[in-house]
Amino acid sequence: MSNNLFDFGMIGLGVMGRNLLLNVADHGFSVIGFDKDEAKNAALEAAATAGTTVKGVPDLEDMVRQLQTPRKLMMLVPAGQPVDDVIASLLPLLEKGDVVIDGGNSHYTDTLRRVEYLKETGINFMGMGVSGGEQGARTGPSMMPGGNEEAYAHIKPILESIAAKVGGVPCVDYLGKGGAGHYVKMVHNGIEYAIMQLISESYALLKRGGLSNQQLHETFKSWNEGLLQSFLVEITADIFLQKDDKTDAHLVDVISDKAGSKGTGKWTSQDSMELPVAVPVIDTAVAMRTLSGYKDERVQAAAIYDELISDLSVSQEELVKMVHDALFFATILSYAQGLAMLFQASKDLKMDIPLPKVVSVWRGGCIIRSTLLETFSKAYNENPELSNILLNEDVAALVKSVESGMRSVVSLAAEAGVPAAGFMSALSYFDAFRTERMPTNLIQAQRDYFGAHTYQRTDIPGTFHTEWGQN
Amino acid sequence: MSNNLFDFGMIGLGVMGRNLLLNVADHGFSVIGFDKDEAKNAALEAAATAGTTVKGVPDLEDMVRQLQTPRKLMMLVPAGQPVDDVIASLLPLLEKGDVVIDGGNSHYTDTLRRVEYLKETGINFMGMGVSGGEQGARTGPSMMPGGNEEAYAHIKPILESIAAKVGGVPCVDYLGKGGAGHYVKMVHNGIEYAIMQLISESYALLKRGGLSNQQLHETFKSWNEGLLQSFLVEITADIFLQKDDKTDAHLVDVISDKAGSKGTGKWTSQDSMELPVAVPVIDTAVAMRTLSGYKDERVQAAAIYDELISDLSVSQEELVKMVHDALFFATILSYAQGLAMLFQASKDLKMDIPLPKVVSVWRGGCIIRSTLLETFSKAYNENPELSNILLNEDVAALVKSVESGMRSVVSLAAEAGVPAAGFMSALSYFDAFRTERMPTNLIQAQRDYFGAHTYQRTDIPGTFHTEWGQN
Repeated sequence: MSNNLFDFGMIGLGVMGRNLLLNVADHGFSVIGFDKDEAKNAALEAAATAGTTVKGVPDLEDMVRQLQTPRKLMMLVPAGQPVDDVIASLLPLLEKGDVVIDGGNSHYTDTLRRVEYLKETGINFMGMGVSGGEQGARTGPSMMPGGNEEAYAHIKPILESIAAKVGGVPCVDYLGKGGAGHYVKMVHNGIEYAIMQLISESYALLKRGGLSNQQLHETFKSWNEGLLQSFLVEITADIFLQKDDKTDAHLVDVISDKAGSKGTGKWTSQDSMELPVAVPVIDTAVAMRTLSGYKDERVQAAAIYDELISDLSVSQEELVKMVHDALFFATILSYAQGLAMLFQASKDLKMDIPLPKVVSVWRGGCIIRSTLLETFSKAYNENPELSNILLNEDVAALVKSVESGMRSVVSLAAEAGVPAAGFMSALSYFDAFRTERMPTNLIQAQRDYFGAHTYQRTDIPGTFHTEWGQN
Repeated sequence: MSNNLFDFGMIGLGVMGRNLLLNVADHGFSVIGFDKDEAKNAALEAAATAGTTVKGVPDLEDMVRQLQTPRKLMMLVPAGQPVDDVIASLLPLLEKGDVVIDGGNSHYTDTLRRVEYLKETGINFMGMGVSGGEQGARTGPSMMPGGNEEAYAHIKPILESIAAKVGGVPCVDYLGKGGAGHYVKMVHNGIEYAIMQLISESYALLKRGGLSNQQLHETFKSWNEGLLQSFLVEITADIFLQKDDKTDAHLVDVISDKAGSKGTGKWTSQDSMELPVAVPVIDTAVAMRTLSGYKDERVQAAAIYDELISDLSVSQEELVKMVHDALFFATILSYAQGLAMLFQASKDLKMDIPLPKVVSVWRGGCIIRSTLLETFSKAYNENPELSNILLNEDVAALVKSVESGMRSVVSLAAEAGVPAAGFMSALSYFDAFRTERMPTNLIQAQRDYFGAHTYQRTDIPGTFHTEWGQN
């Protein structure tokens, strides 16, 4: 710590901010945090590893004054107005060349606006997605920074030191211009929503097939040792073991089925429609979380429609095998849709998002890390301009290897009345995606019939209108 | 036409504006239109029915000066900036008490902003959805006005005279406050997207089953004489008969499968997520129109994934029967989702949308008119506070009567590889909706595991967090 100035500052010392800052300190940087709440400053200092330089102060100006220039600081405050408030407070205190990182879940349009707003002042504003939860923040998150590439050079050593590592490679990289960092994180979360929905459907099917929580644990544990290896499958295996501390039940059985959300999945769906790119598995995951909240209606409907309780027509062994295949198939489809969205957004929104780097950053530390990302990484390194990973040969081979199980699960769920919105959405997207001629020619005919919206032909260029129904 | 002043004015004399204005004139009102394009003014006057009073002028001020007070005028210009431009031009020309109707496809938030903006001036601004296409505008559209109810009284006689009639009842009514008119029209269009998607999937399945265009015509024609009677099924039957005037093909076979859209379906999905309400069949329809545009990727994927060409495992007769049932089932689900969205939006956005009137207005003139709306009308008249029409007994009886065919179609499509995104989405929503306990408890466990997002319990009130994976 030369001249008693700190290397890195953090604004907002909630769990995420504190853990990330302690992580920075553990890697030999001197750090200072600011929070108006003195208890949080005390908690920060108390949690510091012995021998590290960690300080918490209740005054923003005091913190800024103690930072080395060019100052490197991050904020981890709730998205929205709080970010703008922090920027307003910081503006008079900072100088040209300082780097300010918003590490929260801001919407990329807000980030873009802030980047542009601060450009005139010479202050480098970067939006960065951080994934990995509390634990990841403390021991190695996945980080997705975007904005000014030169500014990134200043914070790169710090971020690379604290990031999760896969094969020695840090899970952080410069991911594009403007709001790219938050855009990539938003899509990451959309994929996370999709995979969580698919796992919950796998759970519902296996439970309907009679698997106990112990068997569910063992099933997910063994899946985590194969093609499905991933953080979400791993923690799902854990969850089925967890005992309730209030009753003698398994905890998962007493948890309410009303699912919450922070809105990033919703943003992904909404913004995909703006481009537009089709991400129906993500849309479906958002819709099912929403429907989970309509508990009263569902209870009424269950009474009216006699919820089916038919046995599944397959053995447990067959069921586990086909659900495994369906989950793997649909998980690939979820990544495919999210990555196709990033491909299009990168071009349309002029963010220059390097997809090979995105999947590399996602390989460790984040919620959607999985061995599948190694396959995608290889695919993008072979062809950085790959518009959809389903068009890569290796990915295609994986998809084909489990396609039959995917079809069986949808068929089984339909016949047995088990809701499988995510699975069905993955399969129907796949079947539409590999259809050279969709039946949407009929939709064009209808639109021209009732609204004179015109249509194109397959054989002659141009735009046509027909007076329909005259012959 | 007392004192030589006109009863009603129209700004924008495109096909829709011209036809609507001629319709008003046909009902005994004197009308004046404004368009900068003199050719359109001439076309308006040339198309007038003998004995009606119809005038077109190229000067806005000239038009306004010739209107009876309080002035009643409508604009039919492209949504967005053009509407604001017209308002800016009108402001110095109008007086307190005048009524201005925006009959275009504006987003309801724009309408709300304009209503508020003009409130201070005393000018009554109303947003009104108009459905029925060119032909409907000329002979009887369905109209969905919202805004100031007192202002509606001034235009009610004109609108009721020109509206489509069902059993003598005009398909227009006051549908709520603020932007309610455009909100209802947006959801109408979302439902329209969904049903068109479902019809296109029915077409794909029947075509795969070997039905010729002639047989498709006959199938849809017979469907239109039963439960499925509706405008969209009716015109679909027509479409299969239409011969190409350039080749000897059926026209539908030479139309490109890249489907266009004007964005109102997209708005419906995006805004449903804001509330939130789940409308997955609409989301799916939007996604499939989007995917239809990714032609290059689809052609590549068709080569990689060997598009299936397996025969369907059922006879044509069975196929027609089960697709009929699936289309009816999924059509009900599409209305159910759209109406559930209106129910929630009405409350959350304080629009006081009268659902009994909405379905009454939709019974005639509009694109989604169908005999099903009679059943819904009865349901809402019995219980105007019905949160989802699936909870009505008569609707439930209809759903149950075709549920088995719906399941068979999803199963068949999954096994045969025919894309059926809309059908699958309808069935999976239904199965989730009538599930008392969804598997989303697992999602809550996962969210608490990795993000400490907390969860609720089924047995004890409050919010809980667990340190997972410790046992």
